[in-house]
Amino acid sequence: MKTGTVGAILGWLLIFLSVAMLTPLGFSLYYHDGNWHVFILSALVGFVIGGFLAWACVPDRDIGHREGFAIVGLAWIAAAGLGALPYYISGLIPHYLDAYFEAMSGFTTTGSTILKQVEILGPGLLFWRALTHWLGGMGIIVLSIAILPILGIGGMQLFQAEMPGPTKDRLAPRIQDTARILWGVYVLFTVVETLLLMQAGMSFFEAICHSFATLATGGFSTMTASVGGYSSPIIEFIIIVFMILAGMNFSLHYRLMKGDFRSVFKNEELRFYLGIGMGATALITVANVISNHYGSWLHSLQDSAFQVWSILTTTGFGTADFDKWGPLCRVTLVILMFFGGMAGSTGGGIKHVRIIIFWKFTRVQIRHLIHPKSVETIKLDGQRVPAEVVQGILGYLSLYFAVFVVATMLVTGQGVDLITGSTAVVATLNNIGPGLAGVGATQNFAHMPDMSKFVLILCMVAGRLELYTLAVLLVPQYWKGIRRPVWRWSRTHHAA
Amino acid sequence: MKTGTVGAILGWLLIFLSVAMLTPLGFSLYYHDGNWHVFILSALVGFVIGGFLAWACVPDRDIGHREGFAIVGLAWIAAAGLGALPYYISGLIPHYLDAYFEAMSGFTTTGSTILKQVEILGPGLLFWRALTHWLGGMGIIVLSIAILPILGIGGMQLFQAEMPGPTKDRLAPRIQDTARILWGVYVLFTVVETLLLMQAGMSFFEAICHSFATLATGGFSTMTASVGGYSSPIIEFIIIVFMILAGMNFSLHYRLMKGDFRSVFKNEELRFYLGIGMGATALITVANVISNHYGSWLHSLQDSAFQVWSILTTTGFGTADFDKWGPLCRVTLVILMFFGGMAGSTGGGIKHVRIIIFWKFTRVQIRHLIHPKSVETIKLDGQRVPAEVVQGILGYLSLYFAVFVVATMLVTGQGVDLITGSTAVVATLNNIGPGLAGVGATQNFAHMPDMSKFVLILCMVAGRLELYTLAVLLVPQYWKGIRRPVWRWSRTHHAA
Repeated sequence: MKTGTVGAILGWLLIFLSVAMLTPLGFSLYYHDGNWHVFILSALVGFVIGGFLAWACVPDRDIGHREGFAIVGLAWIAAAGLGALPYYISGLIPHYLDAYFEAMSGFTTTGSTILKQVEILGPGLLFWRALTHWLGGMGIIVLSIAILPILGIGGMQLFQAEMPGPTKDRLAPRIQDTARILWGVYVLFTVVETLLLMQAGMSFFEAICHSFATLATGGFSTMTASVGGYSSPIIEFIIIVFMILAGMNFSLHYRLMKGDFRSVFKNEELRFYLGIGMGATALITVANVISNHYGSWLHSLQDSAFQVWSILTTTGFGTADFDKWGPLCRVTLVILMFFGGMAGSTGGGIKHVRIIIFWKFTRVQIRHLIHPKSVETIKLDGQRVPAEVVQGILGYLSLYFAVFVVATMLVTGQGVDLITGSTAVVATLNNIGPGLAGVGATQNFAHMPDMSKFVLILCMVAGRLELYTLAVLLVPQYWKGIRRPVWRWSRTHHAA
Repeated sequence: MKTGTVGAILGWLLIFLSVAMLTPLGFSLYYHDGNWHVFILSALVGFVIGGFLAWACVPDRDIGHREGFAIVGLAWIAAAGLGALPYYISGLIPHYLDAYFEAMSGFTTTGSTILKQVEILGPGLLFWRALTHWLGGMGIIVLSIAILPILGIGGMQLFQAEMPGPTKDRLAPRIQDTARILWGVYVLFTVVETLLLMQAGMSFFEAICHSFATLATGGFSTMTASVGGYSSPIIEFIIIVFMILAGMNFSLHYRLMKGDFRSVFKNEELRFYLGIGMGATALITVANVISNHYGSWLHSLQDSAFQVWSILTTTGFGTADFDKWGPLCRVTLVILMFFGGMAGSTGGGIKHVRIIIFWKFTRVQIRHLIHPKSVETIKLDGQRVPAEVVQGILGYLSLYFAVFVVATMLVTGQGVDLITGSTAVVATLNNIGPGLAGVGATQNFAHMPDMSKFVLILCMVAGRLELYTLAVLLVPQYWKGIRRPVWRWSRTHHAA
């Protein structure tokens, strides 16, 4: 493995994050929240470590499969390590594991928090918190559209031809092309949402923080009461619209902007995604009125629609304490947690396309039982889905539940009750944010035992990196034959 | 479809069950429990309906795939319909849906009950309850070893060569061969366990009822306190041993009796099954001592071993109120519920072999990500597992969780709380018996809403028939082109 390349890229990532830390510094100074020094100190640490890595490791020109896994996996782990520093140095999150949890929750666009009152952080740290979402979201877009299809994880090779660029084992050029195009869309949406939210009454600071959290399907708000704190139907409506956009495959946005409406409207995953969201909204709206949780249909629709899209897109914003809703509504929400966004979105979860393929596979299996001689292929958007993609997807689904089960076992093993423990795992593994009961919409993760927090952090990364990327790094075989990077100072020596 | 064959076989099944009802009649008369008339009446109903069907429907010589599904699915539905009558006619279970639930729980070897106090039934009905388990178990053995492998459900074609007989699309000869051999083993085990339990202090009546429930991995006891009511370590030990035997593939017992020890000890599924059971026993024993639920190691081992094997084999007998154990123990038990017995046993659940194949598939996937050019095949017991079997198993696992999720949604939609609702589904879908909370070891299913009971009955059948057998019957395509049977009285007309 080319460890030099991995080290150099991680170094540049830390430098980039250190530069990014200067934006919360601005907010901190402007609002006089007294935390400006934490960003200077944290950025310094990032500069020193990142600068050293970037300088010392001599990169190789090409990046292959093996390097891809290490870079992706270690990127999130390292980013959260640095991103936790501002919280930790400020003393407002005095326990480093908690600060790491909060930072990882940010970069994985999960949105679970260990804070009882988020307001205590002050504007600088709140902006940093939102920024970790947004930067994490940038990473996810590239990961899900450019990298995972090439690595072929969990059937994602389906999307290999989605974006321009070479599909060979050379990641770098493709990543650059994809990043340029899709980050443009991402930035554009962020700007538009920020402007709309300001029109609807938010300050610039609040508007940009909420835009970051929406587009990344993260869910960190600047208020403990989340979006519900604004009591503004217009704000909720704007956020619903942008959550729906963020949960869509970003290459569809790109195609829409190029005027290719036809293929977008015919996209099966998009139809399914919109159908599930609208169906669940209708179901919960009705159930909430029947069970008398809401007197008016409109109010029930408003809260139900917001919560359904917030959960389905794995954003995790809240406007209502859904933990008080009836069992049917809560179970529906928990099921939606597994669906997640579309492939190629910033959303987490299983991804709708995998559920579609599973459904089609089951139909074919049943038909085959009735007519044993029939041979049917599975198609998506009119294209035949190869057998290894179907197998990869079915294996992914099974692994997903296995991880869920094992993680729940580990968390409840620490004495956490069953509903809190299992929904904490669901909420982190699917990168949503809140769960039910002890980690419900009005609660937080602070009271979890340290070992459980560690498991939940792993769930966030595992879910975000589609399981296999992290799993590969945990296999000893992967690290076999690894050599130390070529250091800059030993370069001449090597060349000789 | 040859509806004549289906009708005739169902008719003979009802006649057979009516004859079987004469044995509880004997116990009823001997113990003077005043319920002898219910068996006479029920048997009469069965004789009349069954006799009419058997007489009126002209069977065709061969049975194909399509008939297989109808016979298997309708057999359980019809058996429970008749089997519910004794409870219903006696007035002790005054609601027919409850009686049907109890009967289906018997024939599917589930062991969930709607009775608060089982003793009110009296010996005759208690024996009938145990007998439904035992007869259901007979059906399962044939189903899982002779029929499912040929139908190729959920990867079970793996076991096509397990038993002697033709593997072509002619079920009848194979079923007869297999039934003769394996029922011999089943009867032998029942006799031995009955004798041992009598030696350990049970009456003949208690011993035979518990043997029936053990060998069928059912779990109905003659006491509300279940096996715990005897407070006898020897009885518990005997039952543990026979639960382990009942959870094994019955063709392994046949091979052992033929002296083929080698292939049995090398059987991967057997090793895995024993390993999981012993590992879980160790874990729960330790956890229960650490959390101070038990003062003595021996007592903890005794209760943990009994509960682990009772749940793992999906028997569902109880000696301890495990709902009071710590979260780790409870979650472990819930996970074990999904494992179930070995393929070819009377146990329910996913079956260990499917979990082994899933695990091997995941390992291969990860290795393939590390070395994209590597081509690895999955082997079981040294034999290559075909790709369609792997795909079938992965699809089965995904479908299993999908059914679990949908059923939980339907049950909690009736207002049942989350833990009760989800574990009620787990307990019925995996044919175990008790769940947690409202359907825990000391509780029952009577308080569930009627619609939930209906869903849970469907779960029992779906789980027992490995999902697809029932799913096929629910697809309109299956019933397309169906014709009424050839009636005996129209035979000459047809022949003309």
